[in-house]
Amino acid sequence: MTISNLEKYFRNKSVLITGGLGFIGSNLAIKLVELGAKVTLVDSLIPAYGGNMFNIEPVKDLVAINVADVRDSHGMNYLVRSQDIMFNMAGQVSHIDSMEDPYTDLAINTQSQLSILEACRHNNPGIKIVFASTRQIYGKPQYLPVDEKHPLQPTDVNGINKIAGEQYHILYHNVYGIKSVVLRLTNTYGPRLLVKHNRQGFLGWFIRLLLEGKEINIFGDGKQLRDLNYIDDVVEALLLCGAEKKAEGQIMNLGDSVYLSLEEIVKTMIRVNGSGKYRLIPFPRELKKIDIGHYYSDFKKAKKILGWAPKVLPKEGLARTIEYYKKYGTQYYWK
Amino acid sequence: MTISNLEKYFRNKSVLITGGLGFIGSNLAIKLVELGAKVTLVDSLIPAYGGNMFNIEPVKDLVAINVADVRDSHGMNYLVRSQDIMFNMAGQVSHIDSMEDPYTDLAINTQSQLSILEACRHNNPGIKIVFASTRQIYGKPQYLPVDEKHPLQPTDVNGINKIAGEQYHILYHNVYGIKSVVLRLTNTYGPRLLVKHNRQGFLGWFIRLLLEGKEINIFGDGKQLRDLNYIDDVVEALLLCGAEKKAEGQIMNLGDSVYLSLEEIVKTMIRVNGSGKYRLIPFPRELKKIDIGHYYSDFKKAKKILGWAPKVLPKEGLARTIEYYKKYGTQYYWK
Repeated sequence: MTISNLEKYFRNKSVLITGGLGFIGSNLAIKLVELGAKVTLVDSLIPAYGGNMFNIEPVKDLVAINVADVRDSHGMNYLVRSQDIMFNMAGQVSHIDSMEDPYTDLAINTQSQLSILEACRHNNPGIKIVFASTRQIYGKPQYLPVDEKHPLQPTDVNGINKIAGEQYHILYHNVYGIKSVVLRLTNTYGPRLLVKHNRQGFLGWFIRLLLEGKEINIFGDGKQLRDLNYIDDVVEALLLCGAEKKAEGQIMNLGDSVYLSLEEIVKTMIRVNGSGKYRLIPFPRELKKIDIGHYYSDFKKAKKILGWAPKVLPKEGLARTIEYYKKYGTQYYWK
Repeated sequence: MTISNLEKYFRNKSVLITGGLGFIGSNLAIKLVELGAKVTLVDSLIPAYGGNMFNIEPVKDLVAINVADVRDSHGMNYLVRSQDIMFNMAGQVSHIDSMEDPYTDLAINTQSQLSILEACRHNNPGIKIVFASTRQIYGKPQYLPVDEKHPLQPTDVNGINKIAGEQYHILYHNVYGIKSVVLRLTNTYGPRLLVKHNRQGFLGWFIRLLLEGKEINIFGDGKQLRDLNYIDDVVEALLLCGAEKKAEGQIMNLGDSVYLSLEEIVKTMIRVNGSGKYRLIPFPRELKKIDIGHYYSDFKKAKKILGWAPKVLPKEGLARTIEYYKKYGTQYYWK
């Protein structure tokens, strides 16, 4: 599957995106409209989550928007019908929230995934599903880079519930023939990333602090390595999963072969922004317990099956992201 | 920890057993009474499950029985208080039921485990918990014997939900200091095994057919290898987990170094029974999909940490089991 084939594949396809008003879902929607797909977005617009109407400003008249929660199994039963492909991106993604309210995380990340799959099995068994999972499920790496065979030992409730969510997708492929694909995403960033609070990962929050002229606090010595994926690369991987038959039934990591320390990431942000300050501070005790040290993914399997590799370097991606929030930040900081 | 120390450890300890009227829970309760523990049994007595009042006939006046469902989080919130140890054995264990009604399996095997752990965290954080997990979570073995590092690729909803249940126990150990231990059981058999229907594994059902003089049907060529654990050995492992500090936070397989084919198991049953007949028949198509081929566990880790190894050979264990059902079968076949 090459990129040029994607347009041919997606033209006039009916595509459902759960979490379609969120960071990744909305970027995917914009690209799918460009490719000529008929796009329906499902999003619950839960205030603390990433859904934001402004995210789809460029295509708002070209997509169908259905405000609904994936926990609403009746609604989902109807919505999955007559869809060719579902990008199943809806999720509770804050590990902090998952520890404070584990039941909501379970309902969204586990139970709803089961009911979405039951809806497909009974109402649209021919559907293709691309499910967004997360590197969180690996926990603290036992070796690097982390490949798909790495043991799963999540350090939070969120990671455990996501394992169940992705395993259901693979099971429904193996037993019922649902054409599911699972992608385990690493740190994805770019325009439309949630920046309104610090409960969903460090990247959005650091960008917010930078643009507000506030000091960025890095926990620990700042030497923890991370791989980042720019949103356009992730959207491409999702589209390739949707189009590529060989991906069905597979679990694949995304990732990057460029690893940066948290301090290097922040220094890059400050450089492309032209100003900014940061400080290294000791880990709060509660967070130290779930600190995973270095993390970066092995994405050889995605490369082999999808022909995918990330193209956008952190410096370039961070520059584009900061530029976006300089322009549209007021649509995000308090919304 | 040696067996003789168990009596010293458990004397006057307050012990809660969820699923306490079921096969393993009731055998454990009888042993704990013998060791001098103060035992409370929680069981929902759901008709299709393994709970049966006759199971605790020998100790019925020496234990407290609390009929309640682990899904009742208010009841569990109260019941976990002032307990030293909980043996958390309650579960939906039929993989067939988990496919036909995945939500009930999720509620019992996943959501209830989360609420039990939340109950402990808030009301009794010093409690020790021994959680009964299952070899089902490994799925079809990629190598043999299967050790605890083997990838988890369950072939049914039950296995996926049990993964989440056991991972919550380990997480609550790592983050909140709850003293949890996870045991992954293989094919456990012995007196009090459920024999009233064929939805919970083959061993109980084969014994039932044998004693009713009916033909036993083995799917496939009968050469699939299995390891069996006799109930007394499993009870000993559970007790050792409860008493041994080094077991906390660990996941351990039980298993046996004797592997028998299904056909050999049935032939042994017929031999110790003195009569019986069987036939090899082709796999039904639906079951073939989830057939896992050979399975046996590596239990070196349990041996090292607990000093445990199985003692009862299949021939002896099957003889004791068949003798039990010859005597008490009418208390089980239709109850």
